[in-house]
Amino acid sequence: MAKFFGIGVGPGDKELITIKAVRVLSNIDVVILPEAKKDTGSTAYGIAKEYINPIAKMITCEFPMVKDKDDFIKAGERAAEIVMDYVKKGYNTAFLTLGDPSIYSTYIYILKALDSSIEIETIPGITSFCAAAAITNRVLVEGDEILSIIPATCEYEMMNNVVKDSGGVAVMKLFNHGDKAVRLLKENNMIENSVIVRKCGMDDCKISSDIEKSLEESKQYLSIILGRRA
Amino acid sequence: MAKFFGIGVGPGDKELITIKAVRVLSNIDVVILPEAKKDTGSTAYGIAKEYINPIAKMITCEFPMVKDKDDFIKAGERAAEIVMDYVKKGYNTAFLTLGDPSIYSTYIYILKALDSSIEIETIPGITSFCAAAAITNRVLVEGDEILSIIPATCEYEMMNNVVKDSGGVAVMKLFNHGDKAVRLLKENNMIENSVIVRKCGMDDCKISSDIEKSLEESKQYLSIILGRRA
Repeated sequence: MAKFFGIGVGPGDKELITIKAVRVLSNIDVVILPEAKKDTGSTAYGIAKEYINPIAKMITCEFPMVKDKDDFIKAGERAAEIVMDYVKKGYNTAFLTLGDPSIYSTYIYILKALDSSIEIETIPGITSFCAAAAITNRVLVEGDEILSIIPATCEYEMMNNVVKDSGGVAVMKLFNHGDKAVRLLKENNMIENSVIVRKCGMDDCKISSDIEKSLEESKQYLSIILGRRA
Repeated sequence: MAKFFGIGVGPGDKELITIKAVRVLSNIDVVILPEAKKDTGSTAYGIAKEYINPIAKMITCEFPMVKDKDDFIKAGERAAEIVMDYVKKGYNTAFLTLGDPSIYSTYIYILKALDSSIEIETIPGITSFCAAAAITNRVLVEGDEILSIIPATCEYEMMNNVVKDSGGVAVMKLFNHGDKAVRLLKENNMIENSVIVRKCGMDDCKISSDIEKSLEESKQYLSIILGRRA
């Protein structure tokens, strides 16, 4: 029986992909890529391409970079139709996601739109926060501490409430919300013991402990802040 | 120059280890194992052993299974001395950790005890919460939601405060604290949409959506609960 595989390819470094993901990709029949333009390729595809069966069929599937959840749901439904069509015809089909498939991924919207007529296997990936902690040899969380993963897009009061009882935090989705992240770290006495990692593990990876300066210099696409109390 | 590597070997499934971890282990000179008895072997060693250079020197290092932080600090200092000794003699030396090295690991205590005279490379691993989400094809967190990683050993008021503003939670360290986890999930309207995964990805892995029954049946070593609002 053919299967649908949701595959986490890790944060960017081509070696931070699992043995399982590589095994599945080397024999895959169809790969669905979450991007508008196949020619420019998606980041996830860039990481995984050397491991993909060279005769696999590549299909791009548009996932809009917007905030409207309904658009994501519709994109997920379109992708799910394609997936079910190929799997029911007997082709093992994969969808690639950056990082881990269960954390802020577009895979979630495909998963929700699939019915139980096909078999699904999710393969976890290295998260950006674990990779950022590793590249800086930092502790994320220890002992009885809580670790919170915060999207900078969420309401300030909520994130501040969660962080005040957390020992370690990772702030993601910084793009237009750097100011909020800085306020959060300052208010929780974490700014002195924080680091920002941009494009973790990629060739143009940047690391800085001066969060404010780094946020001023450029919009933070694929960036993450790790914080602990000073 | 020789290096010290802190290597996450993932949650249990031998295929959920990264290409990078396998490459480093296949050429490693010395491996430090976090266990009292080399003969019974540690869980991390069981996962990684087939990838380790067959002529590598294996050294076991006692890390007590106790709650006293001072004992961990002392154990970390002892291990760090051994590490520095081998690395300074020119041997690439690795320490293995289950899951990811930056999250609730004993590696943290070695890292803190090392001085800057040796080079350190941390290799991230698949976390138990990502693996548990994958094996159950679940979403951990989406959109603007906060994900919180909660050790069941922490104060109830703290965990409850964090969870009330979180969209997804993973509760770890359940061993003697299952009751607290159940109360937390009930109070936050998550018990209906939760799952408990024991020994994720290992041969004797167990999955149940009846959290209370599962907790009654046995002490939960290497278990994790994933919860979302119903």
